[in-house]
Amino acid sequence: MPVRVGVLGCGNVGAPLVELIGTQGPTVEARTGLRLVVTRVAVRDLAKPRSISLPVDRLTTDAGSIVDDPDIDLVVELIGGIEPARALILSALKAGKPVVTGNKELLAKHGAELFEAAEASGVDLLFEAAVAGGIPIIRPLRESLVGERITRVMGIVNGTTNYILTRMTEAGASYADALAEAQALGYAEADPTADVEGYDAGAKAAIIASIAFGAAVTAADVHHEGISSIAEVDIAFARKMGYVIKLLAVAEQTDAGEIGVRVHPTMVPLEHPLAAVRESFNAIFVEGAAVGDLMFYGRGAGGSPTASAILGDLIDAAVNRHRGSHASVGQLSKAVLRPIEDAESEYYLNVEVLDRPGVLAQVAGVFGDNTVSIRSMEQEGLGEEARLIFITHRAREADVRATLRSLRALEAVDRIGSVLRVLGDEP
Amino acid sequence: MPVRVGVLGCGNVGAPLVELIGTQGPTVEARTGLRLVVTRVAVRDLAKPRSISLPVDRLTTDAGSIVDDPDIDLVVELIGGIEPARALILSALKAGKPVVTGNKELLAKHGAELFEAAEASGVDLLFEAAVAGGIPIIRPLRESLVGERITRVMGIVNGTTNYILTRMTEAGASYADALAEAQALGYAEADPTADVEGYDAGAKAAIIASIAFGAAVTAADVHHEGISSIAEVDIAFARKMGYVIKLLAVAEQTDAGEIGVRVHPTMVPLEHPLAAVRESFNAIFVEGAAVGDLMFYGRGAGGSPTASAILGDLIDAAVNRHRGSHASVGQLSKAVLRPIEDAESEYYLNVEVLDRPGVLAQVAGVFGDNTVSIRSMEQEGLGEEARLIFITHRAREADVRATLRSLRALEAVDRIGSVLRVLGDEP
Repeated sequence: MPVRVGVLGCGNVGAPLVELIGTQGPTVEARTGLRLVVTRVAVRDLAKPRSISLPVDRLTTDAGSIVDDPDIDLVVELIGGIEPARALILSALKAGKPVVTGNKELLAKHGAELFEAAEASGVDLLFEAAVAGGIPIIRPLRESLVGERITRVMGIVNGTTNYILTRMTEAGASYADALAEAQALGYAEADPTADVEGYDAGAKAAIIASIAFGAAVTAADVHHEGISSIAEVDIAFARKMGYVIKLLAVAEQTDAGEIGVRVHPTMVPLEHPLAAVRESFNAIFVEGAAVGDLMFYGRGAGGSPTASAILGDLIDAAVNRHRGSHASVGQLSKAVLRPIEDAESEYYLNVEVLDRPGVLAQVAGVFGDNTVSIRSMEQEGLGEEARLIFITHRAREADVRATLRSLRALEAVDRIGSVLRVLGDEP
Repeated sequence: MPVRVGVLGCGNVGAPLVELIGTQGPTVEARTGLRLVVTRVAVRDLAKPRSISLPVDRLTTDAGSIVDDPDIDLVVELIGGIEPARALILSALKAGKPVVTGNKELLAKHGAELFEAAEASGVDLLFEAAVAGGIPIIRPLRESLVGERITRVMGIVNGTTNYILTRMTEAGASYADALAEAQALGYAEADPTADVEGYDAGAKAAIIASIAFGAAVTAADVHHEGISSIAEVDIAFARKMGYVIKLLAVAEQTDAGEIGVRVHPTMVPLEHPLAAVRESFNAIFVEGAAVGDLMFYGRGAGGSPTASAILGDLIDAAVNRHRGSHASVGQLSKAVLRPIEDAESEYYLNVEVLDRPGVLAQVAGVFGDNTVSIRSMEQEGLGEEARLIFITHRAREADVRATLRSLRALEAVDRIGSVLRVLGDEP
């Protein structure tokens, strides 16, 4: 049985996808009885030389004509961005064509609308590639764990920042040097904002939260803090205290059903599995009430791993279509969001103070006044000044913010450096 | 829509499953529209006190009557072992009832027969819990990676041996003491043979190989070596050289299509993600041509994690049944097995020799005569004797065996200690 596939976009992921469908076609046919045929491919520039094994007459610049083509059974969207991707996907779904996409930005903004359109037409909308590239995480969350009460998901879902932090940790590089290296290797863009300030990870966190908790969470609901202000001294103190700093996307649901989603650098204990995720690798750590701790590790980006995830979805959609079935994320409920002020964590604070008698007592008093309990403190002399490194017990975000405001008002406090969450095991 | 579930077996996994279906029922119904109802449960002893929230009249000692009951839509088999589990599953499948099982022993022996029976009836036979407990690995292999050319799968799939090796590595315990500790904690049986000699891991490796390569591999096809002869000196040398010893289940397929499946202790480099899998945790590392490296980590055993995996399958089977669809492993081909003699690896050898001039040259000569190339050697004095620790370049198993035979024939060789594979990156 041939399945006629239209591919929108033939760049970094589209080109290896077309090749992968070619090389793996016989295996897929042997296992499923279905023959995937790339019938038409939409490109921006017909004249651009491409290393794909397709007759040139299958290329077009008119993506809409592929979606509308009655000879196309299945659509793969790899254009990215909001429009025209959104309109094309909605149009395909309305025409009863299953869609596979890797578009995290679109799903994190308009996911609920797209899932409803797929459900209304009774066809698949699959998007494994949108989160953590080649790592199977969406399907396990949607299917394997649909009956599990997931309490928290923590992911290293941005390879660029993980590479930068790995270089800072292992080679002692500064943030600026590690970023420049990531840019030279093509891991980071010339304008690295989306990566280093956590927006890319935030979009993925919104999608993960939506699927894990069955509620519509968008990128706008995610609290972001980036890694650009992480200093070498923070990396060094983390290491000394048995931690490594990772940019984590965290999605959690309280017993009361409130959902909190945030992205921020976090001190991860060295013995935690996420601490061993190095370089540009990604991993998603899932905590479930019955299943316990799970982790999914692999390549979160790159043309070939992402194309592999797209192909997996494509086969699934083709098989489902053949059987007249489809996957479903169910009806997403409206998310009840927990304000970031109510989030709780252990914290690391790096406070530079004048080195004179009574300052520590004064600073410690500020913590106490704001009901933030100190677990440990280390002092490092800096000539006329001293650096105080605090690790707190579990505290409310609002209380930590109030502590910081009060500390800044102290004459003896010269500067507050990094404030980082600490992944601890306090309940 | 109620889905009437019959559960065969109500022990370590069955009891938490019944409770989990109760607590998670509303979530499952909200997401899928289906209400799972545990209608009947087969037990061995009706009089045994049980902590499950079910009316006692739903229990029976007659498993066959559940399978035959027209009021049962779906069967969960948790009896274990070959018979009567096999007959009960075949009977359920023939009656058109989807089956969920966690029975690794049965699948590793009669998988092909059971898959065919499921396919013939057009119903699901799902078995996520059979490999690595709560970790989603079967579904990702069956679905996400069905289009991927998988070259190798390496798993830490036995929690008991991983716990023992972790204690030997981290606490310096002897094998005997670590085993006794695992027994005291309930991780190891009074007769630990199935775990420590690799039979349990071998059954899981056979199932993984069958799904990853689409070919019928049975437990009898797996080459086994256990951990009972690992000495403290091996652990210490591994650590010194930057490795940790893990019992790995390895399934690989050569470019020519030959499949090799084996279980043996392996020296894993400390920077490899599998090295960070500690205590009784499991992990499966998958190498794919397009997707690159993936790892799936979590609890490989225990009632609650395993029940979670069963519930995931149960929901899937219920949804598929409702839609008139079913999952499929496709037709398993006959496996072309690679003889263990043709397997290749880097090796660690611990050879005790008389400490006198010329012995090293003599021993090294034996390696050379058998075309086994030495990568590094360390010598440790032991009074009248010396211990030679060799790491080889990649070598054929048959050549290493020939080397060992020749070494044993040398008068200067007192004893050959452990011979372990080394997970290297030589092609």
